[in-house]
Amino acid sequence: MNETQLGDATNSAENNTKTKQTGKKQLANGFDFSKGTQGLDADSATLIERRKRVLGTLGPLFYNQPIHVVRGQGAHLFDAQGNDYLDCYNNVACVGHVNAHVREAVADQLTRQDTHSRYLQDEVLDYAERLLGYFPQTLDHVSFTNSGSESNDLALRMARAYTGNRGVVVTSNAYHGITDLVASISPSFGTGIPLASFLATVEVADVLKNPGPDAEEILLGRFEAAFRQLHDAGYGVSAVLLDQIFSSDGVLPGAPGWVGRVAQAAHEAGGLLIADEVQSGFARTGDAFWGFQRHNADADIVTMGKPMGNGIPTGAVVYKTPIGDRFAECTRYFNTFGGNPVSMRAASAVLDEIEQRELLRHAETIGDRIAGELESLLGDTPGFGGIRHAGLFIGLDITSRDNRGLPDPAATQRIVDELRTRKVLISASGADASTLKLRPPLVFSDADADRLLDAMQQVKSVGLLR
Amino acid sequence: MNETQLGDATNSAENNTKTKQTGKKQLANGFDFSKGTQGLDADSATLIERRKRVLGTLGPLFYNQPIHVVRGQGAHLFDAQGNDYLDCYNNVACVGHVNAHVREAVADQLTRQDTHSRYLQDEVLDYAERLLGYFPQTLDHVSFTNSGSESNDLALRMARAYTGNRGVVVTSNAYHGITDLVASISPSFGTGIPLASFLATVEVADVLKNPGPDAEEILLGRFEAAFRQLHDAGYGVSAVLLDQIFSSDGVLPGAPGWVGRVAQAAHEAGGLLIADEVQSGFARTGDAFWGFQRHNADADIVTMGKPMGNGIPTGAVVYKTPIGDRFAECTRYFNTFGGNPVSMRAASAVLDEIEQRELLRHAETIGDRIAGELESLLGDTPGFGGIRHAGLFIGLDITSRDNRGLPDPAATQRIVDELRTRKVLISASGADASTLKLRPPLVFSDADADRLLDAMQQVKSVGLLR
Repeated sequence: MNETQLGDATNSAENNTKTKQTGKKQLANGFDFSKGTQGLDADSATLIERRKRVLGTLGPLFYNQPIHVVRGQGAHLFDAQGNDYLDCYNNVACVGHVNAHVREAVADQLTRQDTHSRYLQDEVLDYAERLLGYFPQTLDHVSFTNSGSESNDLALRMARAYTGNRGVVVTSNAYHGITDLVASISPSFGTGIPLASFLATVEVADVLKNPGPDAEEILLGRFEAAFRQLHDAGYGVSAVLLDQIFSSDGVLPGAPGWVGRVAQAAHEAGGLLIADEVQSGFARTGDAFWGFQRHNADADIVTMGKPMGNGIPTGAVVYKTPIGDRFAECTRYFNTFGGNPVSMRAASAVLDEIEQRELLRHAETIGDRIAGELESLLGDTPGFGGIRHAGLFIGLDITSRDNRGLPDPAATQRIVDELRTRKVLISASGADASTLKLRPPLVFSDADADRLLDAMQQVKSVGLLR
Repeated sequence: MNETQLGDATNSAENNTKTKQTGKKQLANGFDFSKGTQGLDADSATLIERRKRVLGTLGPLFYNQPIHVVRGQGAHLFDAQGNDYLDCYNNVACVGHVNAHVREAVADQLTRQDTHSRYLQDEVLDYAERLLGYFPQTLDHVSFTNSGSESNDLALRMARAYTGNRGVVVTSNAYHGITDLVASISPSFGTGIPLASFLATVEVADVLKNPGPDAEEILLGRFEAAFRQLHDAGYGVSAVLLDQIFSSDGVLPGAPGWVGRVAQAAHEAGGLLIADEVQSGFARTGDAFWGFQRHNADADIVTMGKPMGNGIPTGAVVYKTPIGDRFAECTRYFNTFGGNPVSMRAASAVLDEIEQRELLRHAETIGDRIAGELESLLGDTPGFGGIRHAGLFIGLDITSRDNRGLPDPAATQRIVDELRTRKVLISASGADASTLKLRPPLVFSDADADRLLDAMQQVKSVGLLR
C-alpha cells in the first residue's frame, strides 16, 4: 500500500484541466436525487421539487427521507409537523440552536452599525483581542473572513508568500473547503476535478484506528516522505494543513502529541503547520480549547470557521507576526464582511456562552460519558469496530459482522437511517463512510445523552448491531 | 501602448512562485501606518495602536485621519463624538445603515432556526425563487455563498468545468476578490504576488473615458485579441469576467450594449461571460436591476455579494442549467453558511425594501440629479476631467490644471480629504486613483444630495477645484 501520494499526475501541466466525468466522490448520507420523490410525504416531495428547480442537484441533501427543519432549540431541531429531532451532528450551533444570548447581541448591534474594518471600530478590536487571548503568545495576529474555506485559502496564500514554496501536504481523505485552491487539496471530493499537482497526501487512518507502540514514528516517517516528494518534484513545502481531529478521515483524535512531531518535521522541511480548527476548535475536544494545543503542536497559522459565530457567517486566520508581515509586503487583504460588527458580536456572545456555561469542561465530561457508555453497550457486538473520541466529537466504526472486520458502509448507512427514524441525527465519515460521526452542539445535556444512548440501544436491539 | 496583456510571464511554470517584495499596489485613500499616529486625537491613536497590535497592517484603513464609526442611520454614519458623516461611499448598506426591516427579519429568524441547506428549509427556497425572478429565464439556477469572492471563485470553477478551458480575461485594473484564484486574476492588487499565467487583461478605461464613434469596435477588437492570446498560449478561454460597471478601472458605465458584443465574441471563442454584479447589481445602476441587463449581454453566470444582505454576509452565483449540471457531474458544492436562513431572511428584506421604496427608479432619478448638478457646478473648472454615471454610481475624473488634462491622483486625494473634513465620505478609483468614486446607499435622499452638492461647492470654493 502506498501511504503517501502526489496529486493527480494528469494535472501536472497547468493548461491541462479537462475534467473527467468520473471520479466525483459522493457525500455519505446524501439523498439520491435520481430516484425521485416517490414514497416521501407530500410536503417533502414538494420542497425537493422546488429545490431541484432552483438549486439543482449540486448541493447535497441529507437522508433518503430528508428533514424539513423549521425550528431549533438547544440540541434539538423540529420539523414542520413538530417532531423533535435530537441533533447529534451539528457543530455550527455550538452554543445551541436559537441561542438567546447570540440573538440579543446580533439584534443589538443591528441597532448600532454594521460597516467594515476600513473604519476604526470597537467591535472587531474587542473580539480580536479576546480571541487572541485563547492562543499562545506567538500566535498574536488575526485576519477575519466569512468561512472556514476563506480561512484555509488565506492561510495557504500566506504560507506560500512566507516560505516561497508551493507544495502542500494533507491527509488522504482531507476536506478543507470549497474555494478553487482548497478544493484542489481536498481529496474527499474525489478527482472529478483533478487534485492539485503540488499536493502530497498521507494516509493516517490505518495507523490511528489501530495504533501500535510505534504509531508516532510511522506517521512521522510518512509525512517526511511526503515532504521529500514535494522537494523532489520542485515544489518545496509551503505547509502541512491538518484538521486537528481528522474528521473526514474518520474522526481520528489519536494520542495527543503526534501532530507536534509533524510540525517539527514540517519546519525542518521549510514549511509551516496550518492547524485547521474548523472542526476541532472552540472547546470541541474537551481537553483544550484548540486541537493543536491538545497535540502540543507549534502551529504557525490557525484557521477557524463553522462554530465561531453559532451560525452567523464568520471565520478567522490567526498567525505569527512575521508571516502576516511578509504577506503584507506582497499584497493587501481586505475582506468586506470579514470582521463586520454583527459577526463580531455574535462571535463574542459565543465565547461568553462557552465561558459562562463552562462548555470546555462539559464537552470533556459528557463526551467521556457518551463514549464510555457506547463502548459498554456495543463492546462485544459483532459489527462494532471500535470507538474514538476527544471531548464531544465521537467516531464509531462499523465493520462487517464476520470475523474479518472490514469497513461496512452499507451497515453504517442503515444505522444512520435507523437513528433518523428514531429522530436522532448523526452522519457518517471516513474514506469509506463506515464511521458513525457524532458531533452535537456543545450544550448537549445529560438528558440528551440519555436519549442518544437509548436510541443506540434500540438500534442494537433491532439487530443492526448485534 | 499594449492594450491586451498576458499575466505575469514569470509565473508560467507552476513551481515558480517566489513572491517579489515590490509590486504591491496600495489602495487609494489608505492610512499610512508607517507614519504613526502623531497628530491624531487620542481616541483614534489608541484604536490604531490596538489595531496594529492584533490585526497588523495587512488590512487597509481609510483616511489619514481615520473615522471611528459607532452608529449608522440611512445614508449617515456617526463617530464616537456624535459627528454626522454623509456616507457617499458604501454600497453594502444599500437599503440604509441600520435598516429596521432587515433587523426585524434577522432577529425573527434567530428565534426560529439557523442551520444549513443539507436539510429542507423554506427560507433558502423562498429567496432563491424570488431572486431568480429578477433574471431572464435562461439564468434559472442559483448557489449561495458568503461573499463576492466566494461567488467569483465558484463561477470560475464552473466555467472551467463546463468549457474544459483554463484561460480568463479581465480588464487591466480589475478587482474580483481575495481567494487565491480570484486574487490571481485581479491586477488591481499589483504583482507583489504574481498574477496568473492563464490571465489576459484588456485596457478599457482609455476608450470608455473618451469614447469615439468606433469605441465599441475598438473594445471588441481588444477582447478578441485577448481570446487569441489565450488560445495561442494553450489555455483556451474559460471566461471573460467583467464587473458590469468597471468600478476599479475608474467607474466606466459606458454606452449600454458594448458588453453584449463581448459576450458574443466570448461564446464564439468557446468561453462564457461571467457578469460580476457585486458592484453593479441590486438596482444600483438605476436603469436595470443588473448591470448586464443594462448592457443587454447574454451572461452565462452572474455573481453577487456586497449589497445582497445589507451587511449580513451572503453572496450568490446564478447560472444557466447546463453549466451547473456539468459542474455537478464533476464535484459537489456545499457551502456551510451559504443560503443559511438568517442570511436569506436579510436578503429577502433587502428586496422588500428595494421594491417597496422603489429604489431602482430612485437610483436613476437621484443619480441623474447629482451627476447633472455636479457637471453644472464643475463643468468649466480646471482640474475637472469629466463625469460618468449609471444610477447612483458616479465617477468624476480629476486632472492636472494645466491644459494637458493628465490624471492627478494627488489632487484627487486632497479632494477626498477635504470632503472628509466636511464630513462627506467618498473615495478614489481607477488605475491611477484619479477618479472620485461616489456610490452611496440607495436610500440617499434629496436632502443628502443637497448636502453633498453643497460640500462639493465648498471644495470648489476653497480652490481644490477651480
